[in-house]
Amino acid sequence: DVMKKLDKLENEFLPQVMVDNTEVIFDTLRFLEPQTKELIIANTGQVPVQFEFIKKLDDPNYCKEWLNIEPYTGFIMPGEKCDIRLEVYVDKKSACKMNSGQDKLYDILVLHLDGGKDIFITVTGSYERSCFGSSIEALVHMNVPVREIPAGKIIELENCKGDAGPPYMVPKEVWYLVDHLYRHALKTQHLFENPGLHNELIQIRNWLDTSPNESLPGSVHSVAEALLLLLESTAEPIIPYNLHNVCLGASSNYLQCKQIVMQLPDHSKNVFLYLCFFLQELLSHSSDNQLDGKTLATLFGGIFIREPPRSRNPSSARTKSNQQEADRKKANFVYHFLVNDTSELVMGCS
Amino acid sequence: DVMKKLDKLENEFLPQVMVDNTEVIFDTLRFLEPQTKELIIANTGQVPVQFEFIKKLDDPNYCKEWLNIEPYTGFIMPGEKCDIRLEVYVDKKSACKMNSGQDKLYDILVLHLDGGKDIFITVTGSYERSCFGSSIEALVHMNVPVREIPAGKIIELENCKGDAGPPYMVPKEVWYLVDHLYRHALKTQHLFENPGLHNELIQIRNWLDTSPNESLPGSVHSVAEALLLLLESTAEPIIPYNLHNVCLGASSNYLQCKQIVMQLPDHSKNVFLYLCFFLQELLSHSSDNQLDGKTLATLFGGIFIREPPRSRNPSSARTKSNQQEADRKKANFVYHFLVNDTSELVMGCS
Repeated sequence: DVMKKLDKLENEFLPQVMVDNTEVIFDTLRFLEPQTKELIIANTGQVPVQFEFIKKLDDPNYCKEWLNIEPYTGFIMPGEKCDIRLEVYVDKKSACKMNSGQDKLYDILVLHLDGGKDIFITVTGSYERSCFGSSIEALVHMNVPVREIPAGKIIELENCKGDAGPPYMVPKEVWYLVDHLYRHALKTQHLFENPGLHNELIQIRNWLDTSPNESLPGSVHSVAEALLLLLESTAEPIIPYNLHNVCLGASSNYLQCKQIVMQLPDHSKNVFLYLCFFLQELLSHSSDNQLDGKTLATLFGGIFIREPPRSRNPSSARTKSNQQEADRKKANFVYHFLVNDTSELVMGCS
Repeated sequence: DVMKKLDKLENEFLPQVMVDNTEVIFDTLRFLEPQTKELIIANTGQVPVQFEFIKKLDDPNYCKEWLNIEPYTGFIMPGEKCDIRLEVYVDKKSACKMNSGQDKLYDILVLHLDGGKDIFITVTGSYERSCFGSSIEALVHMNVPVREIPAGKIIELENCKGDAGPPYMVPKEVWYLVDHLYRHALKTQHLFENPGLHNELIQIRNWLDTSPNESLPGSVHSVAEALLLLLESTAEPIIPYNLHNVCLGASSNYLQCKQIVMQLPDHSKNVFLYLCFFLQELLSHSSDNQLDGKTLATLFGGIFIREPPRSRNPSSARTKSNQQEADRKKANFVYHFLVNDTSELVMGCS
């Protein structure tokens, strides 16, 4: 009868696809080393298909921040197919959530067909934790390389639970990088300005995470970039987000800046003073290395006083001139500690 | 002829002894664990013998400070013998020299016979280094238990040579002991007043020197005594000898006392402030533990501001009333840091 025929006709004109893999499993993923896998979406129906990965209820995006889907939307003619490239990549923004257990390498993607059904695709893999993405507080309590520490123990340390051992002055990883620069790069020009090499950063990461009995690999520029990256990968910056605005407000007044530093969480304070002490040492060799205080203060201002993530406080999004003003204040804040005698504040890292 | 007969007679009347062992070899010696060996001196001559161990040229004493000879002098009739007891014992005074390589378990004794010849006896053995007797500076750079570190490396660390690794805030051994007391003894009465047990001190020493995967042994009183002993065994006290008199002079003035503390060697400063912080914590439980600030200040005053060895400055030997005055000043010095808010000075050990 007519109704049945209509139903059948309608079904035939529904979009239909085949996905070659709905459980995408990645190999062990490491910090700063991307991996890709391909998905094939084949149009097996009789009508063109408009597809799109859509976000699940309550999720801010159609995939986790460490995943990239290319293309995430498209149009496929009947009998044709589309290759989708899935890239997973844990960088300085996502590493801390992996370390703390707040996130893991697991996502469910919703492939939506316009006018048709939804197909669910899982993405999984295991992430190998690194010192990059660890908090300062957790790192100072790790007296063996991070890869020798069970994941559960790292999560405990990141969440300030369980028994922590005796703390280092500053994370040993910070110490190793600074010590290397201190011994090999005091007279190097364009330190922190010249970029490092990606493969050397990977080697340095492996060295820090396993501490083999050999010297730190890579050029001093790669070591310098690794140091910046380590500081940028923590969940909270050296100046915690809750002191961000106080810091900018105090930036013209050294006394107030000192008071803020003395209020910092213990180990953040040590790292701050230790690095300022090292930067002072670099500046004392400026006739060789051509570095100047303003440049270093601007660079480290942005790192010590990291901008809060947009999502935290959308109303604080700055105009360009506001941002320039904030950057100038951050630089001023740090500059005090590069030109004044901070030995009254500094504790033993020498 | 007569001359020959006289010579012979004279020889016969010379004192003559047999010593059963002129190379005394001890087993491996450990901190705070004495060992003894016996020597037998037999009078094999025809006249009584007066013997005495005498000091070698330039030596202040007839044996090293870690050796005790009992009796060191005596009288033996012909055909008789005398048992001599040699005791070796490395304590808080001698341990630091063993650790630094300034001394070793080796001595040459000169057994002098009155009117006769000298007999040389060597005393040897190997000493197993411990954290007791290590300097604060060396300990903070040891990230494995001391027994896992080769002797040569320890000597390097004690003499500030060679590559030192990233430093702990305070020696991990200090941290372990304080952490244990913090968790188990805040409400214990007579802490630091009740003595520990010798066998438990040995167990605690072994635990600190090997860090096995079990909890610290011994009662809290033994742990407390171990902490005091560790601080007393360093070559330099927390307040270095060169600041000793400055310290006493400043003791009535908190501001000056603070300035002295801020001048301390980095890690000594950390240990000082860390322990004062812990003592404040103890005092905040005084309704349970019955401790009072004056008592703790007096006890720790004597430990932080240790009396310089007499030999260093004989003219400074004090009368009893002078000593009481000095002890009172030491207590005053420490007392400031038990009753004032020192958080402005304290760095992260929490």
